[in-house]
Amino acid sequence: MAVSANANGQEVSAAKKDAVRDKSVYSPVQTSRIDHTPTLPSVLQGNFKLNHGPPSTSAGQPEEIQKLFPCLFGQPSVQIVKSDSPSYNVDQKLKVGVVLSGGQAPGGHNVIAGFFDYLQAHAPGSVLYGFKGGPAGIMRNKVVEITAEFLYPYRNQGGFDIICSGRDKIETPEQFQQAVDTVTKLDLDGLVVIGGDDSNTNAALLGEYFRSKKVKCHVIGCPKTIDGDLKSVEVPISFGFDTACKIYAEMIGNIMVDARSTGKYYHFVRLMGRAASHITLECALQTHPNVAIIGEEVNSQNKTLREVTNSIADLVCQRAEMGKHYGVVLIPEGLIDFIPEIQHLISELNEILANQGCDEHGHWKSTLKPPSRALFDSLPHSIQEELLLERDPHGNVQVSRIEMEKMLISMIETELFARKHEGSYSGQFKGQAHFFGYEGRCGMPTNFDTTYCYALGYAAGALMHLGQTGLIASVANLTAPASEWTVGGTALTQLMDVERRNGKNKPVIKKAMVELNGAPFKKFASVRDAWAVEDSYVSPGPIQFAGPTSDDTNFTLKLELGAPVDV
Amino acid sequence: MAVSANANGQEVSAAKKDAVRDKSVYSPVQTSRIDHTPTLPSVLQGNFKLNHGPPSTSAGQPEEIQKLFPCLFGQPSVQIVKSDSPSYNVDQKLKVGVVLSGGQAPGGHNVIAGFFDYLQAHAPGSVLYGFKGGPAGIMRNKVVEITAEFLYPYRNQGGFDIICSGRDKIETPEQFQQAVDTVTKLDLDGLVVIGGDDSNTNAALLGEYFRSKKVKCHVIGCPKTIDGDLKSVEVPISFGFDTACKIYAEMIGNIMVDARSTGKYYHFVRLMGRAASHITLECALQTHPNVAIIGEEVNSQNKTLREVTNSIADLVCQRAEMGKHYGVVLIPEGLIDFIPEIQHLISELNEILANQGCDEHGHWKSTLKPPSRALFDSLPHSIQEELLLERDPHGNVQVSRIEMEKMLISMIETELFARKHEGSYSGQFKGQAHFFGYEGRCGMPTNFDTTYCYALGYAAGALMHLGQTGLIASVANLTAPASEWTVGGTALTQLMDVERRNGKNKPVIKKAMVELNGAPFKKFASVRDAWAVEDSYVSPGPIQFAGPTSDDTNFTLKLELGAPVDV
Repeated sequence: MAVSANANGQEVSAAKKDAVRDKSVYSPVQTSRIDHTPTLPSVLQGNFKLNHGPPSTSAGQPEEIQKLFPCLFGQPSVQIVKSDSPSYNVDQKLKVGVVLSGGQAPGGHNVIAGFFDYLQAHAPGSVLYGFKGGPAGIMRNKVVEITAEFLYPYRNQGGFDIICSGRDKIETPEQFQQAVDTVTKLDLDGLVVIGGDDSNTNAALLGEYFRSKKVKCHVIGCPKTIDGDLKSVEVPISFGFDTACKIYAEMIGNIMVDARSTGKYYHFVRLMGRAASHITLECALQTHPNVAIIGEEVNSQNKTLREVTNSIADLVCQRAEMGKHYGVVLIPEGLIDFIPEIQHLISELNEILANQGCDEHGHWKSTLKPPSRALFDSLPHSIQEELLLERDPHGNVQVSRIEMEKMLISMIETELFARKHEGSYSGQFKGQAHFFGYEGRCGMPTNFDTTYCYALGYAAGALMHLGQTGLIASVANLTAPASEWTVGGTALTQLMDVERRNGKNKPVIKKAMVELNGAPFKKFASVRDAWAVEDSYVSPGPIQFAGPTSDDTNFTLKLELGAPVDV
Repeated sequence: MAVSANANGQEVSAAKKDAVRDKSVYSPVQTSRIDHTPTLPSVLQGNFKLNHGPPSTSAGQPEEIQKLFPCLFGQPSVQIVKSDSPSYNVDQKLKVGVVLSGGQAPGGHNVIAGFFDYLQAHAPGSVLYGFKGGPAGIMRNKVVEITAEFLYPYRNQGGFDIICSGRDKIETPEQFQQAVDTVTKLDLDGLVVIGGDDSNTNAALLGEYFRSKKVKCHVIGCPKTIDGDLKSVEVPISFGFDTACKIYAEMIGNIMVDARSTGKYYHFVRLMGRAASHITLECALQTHPNVAIIGEEVNSQNKTLREVTNSIADLVCQRAEMGKHYGVVLIPEGLIDFIPEIQHLISELNEILANQGCDEHGHWKSTLKPPSRALFDSLPHSIQEELLLERDPHGNVQVSRIEMEKMLISMIETELFARKHEGSYSGQFKGQAHFFGYEGRCGMPTNFDTTYCYALGYAAGALMHLGQTGLIASVANLTAPASEWTVGGTALTQLMDVERRNGKNKPVIKKAMVELNGAPFKKFASVRDAWAVEDSYVSPGPIQFAGPTSDDTNFTLKLELGAPVDV
């Protein structure tokens, strides 16, 4: 018999359902959103069928991908199109599962809602299980049955708290076997994996494994990450990016108004988004800061930390001459990963910490290579301490704990102090540091994310019902009204390349970085010099759920799709 | 001839106007707000007259206040009521000024818009000057003429950037004379001062001075501060509090959803609001955190820092036993000012730093009194450094730079580590620190602040036109629809008491602290134990400008006015 888990993680019979969430404490806005009905793309209304494309290949090294995915490699991507009659067995009831994997992103609940509503509409009598706490819930068979009543209060709401998420991976042969045991025990026809690049790679591996073991369970992925780095031609955007950027942009816009009103602070805003700088770029397009550092550009130009800070100091001096002693600077969380010299320093530090350790007299510093030594000595004391003190469980420096925004402020202060001394600067520089992260991950999804996620979940249901596996739900034509969006499934192997890790070939969906010759960056690059000196600040204000512009999407997506924008 | 100043602060002829703001870079929400027309209380529509109340007194020491305000003391407060015909000279044209004083608060632009629109409607042909950069603009006669075209793009927008603000005070006899010179040169009939408690005290002193010197310029104040600590029976709320709290509550609500979804972080959120804890209390009522520290309560119970942190550690342990390793704690920015032992330590440190200084071997510590020494030694290293390193220009410890949220996390970590060692705690405690400040000060004003500020400005115009001076515009009955709001002016001396400073009697408008027997705190105290252990989190979501609840005001105001609330 199927088992599930209560809130404390104890396993209980599936018959005993989790308590339905008490929505008596909902805010008026939360309450007003519950009954909002997202527009469904018209191809998902009425009857539909699949159009199969040509055999697929991979993003790189197709022979290697074929070796890793002997069953799934080459299968075509599909489009859902209208048909005269149902193309599935109308009497079929499905038993299916869903799992949320990795960090939260606004809209996750709506993917589940879309999936659930598909089943209600097209396969009534089906059963939907939610795996609790991420992939670990699959391995340990921690599950809750998602009913209409249970799902209702989460509709159009932020967060992943309906079944929570987790960062575990299904990796070892034992873990794959646990997954087989669970889906067999639950008699699952399919599993929807909602996650980022890693999770979707894992979804493909799971689909391959199930197929190879003749397990009937199909696997469909959905693209999730606020960072915006899971995308391709077929999957134009990951969900959550739109909402998170708009929340950050609201706050940045407010700070800009404050900066201009007060006239005496430089605000340095670090934004979540580690691997790629999409969030920083989108927020820049929305708000027009004086500076937005794009990690990919810094890296491509092999810039040093000093070059980055000096260019900001130059602008501070230039603005001071215009009588402006304020400004706003956006910094991607992952900046430190993009500056080669810092990476060298950190890897040397990791080595030293692992072997000799650091003596308190600082003799250890002589083992640093000269460029790293010079860089270390140039860092503010507090950052030196962070580099030496914060370690992760593997003994490595915890880069994510380093408050890059404070580091830049401190280094610019030092530089400007020197310039003041020389007489080349006579202003007042006061930095204010901000980090926007958690505020954006669990916001209430925008109309775009609400609608997009619902379509993704509905599409996942349709793909599964039509016998598909190893696909990622792909909803496109996103700059058109939602009714005109196209819907399909892209072979997950199509997005893959191979990386060599620990002597083995591993399939990976490569993170989509900011393209320096892509439309969003080029638009930014064409206007940033004006933004640097003029005050072109834009204040997007709070996300609105009603009104003429509440359905607007983001600049990055529009520019990438060639839609007109007004930046 | 009148002079004004351009953006670079150079004085120019008043005939040369500042450039009209370019709104081509406005966001859709900004643009949609510009043409929003706030509802005017019905008493301000059509003809009106003044009803005078009885002679006023003061909040304390009336004889002393009378000595300080021989001209203004005792003047009645007034109510604006409907009348059959205009009660003012319909041909009178006014020359008036307005100044924004102190920190920004959402709605300031609308006070100016209300004032301007009053003049257009009732004294057409009047001239409105804006003093630039706060009270310094009065002393230095830096002024811009506010025309319809100049004002338009600032309507319903956040910030104070139309004329900016400043923190200078008009204090010395020379400065009062400068103010006289300016208003005489500009031939001003009146001046509206938009500010907090200090600025309104200054407004009263200026009104008194002008009256005593037979200068015709009248002075009317308007209550501004996001901190919510300028209020009385007559002035139920200061503007900006509503918007700032709702912006903070949006972010807190998002973080709560994240906390519950992730299940592994305790978020410590420090909120702007130095002197009083109104913002923290209001945000608690809006979002239901596990803990909200109210400074006034900590102070009234003479709590030690250790008691504060241990009570949070107790809750962490209790929740760990329930399987919950996450939570949200709200902290007022001014907490440090409310803990007596920290105040003692800081004053001893100030003394030591001013006299002997701190030797690097720490011998100076022996000059601390034993309780302060014990407290200092118990503090995290980083906080000890902040206490010793950060000084203001007077050599004092800069309390506002101390990251109280990090200090609490660090001390709770230490405590829980000890408990783990003893075996009384076995959970995982991971703290995340946040500070919400600037994000809220310059947000786009809520419908409430938009309407309230417009009414305040319109009222200020009416009061001035009807020959009043030394009053603060007071708009009340605020839980009714805006059309039913009552409008009047309260004698500023009525709000005053006397404090002895540097051997002199100084008039002060006392800051309104959180009343521990007031309705907002009592409501909070009645429910907080449940919030501590249950997850009663509420996510208010982004501020909406349209929809059924977009005109709602805040819990603090409703509870103080005895209106029903649903917490």
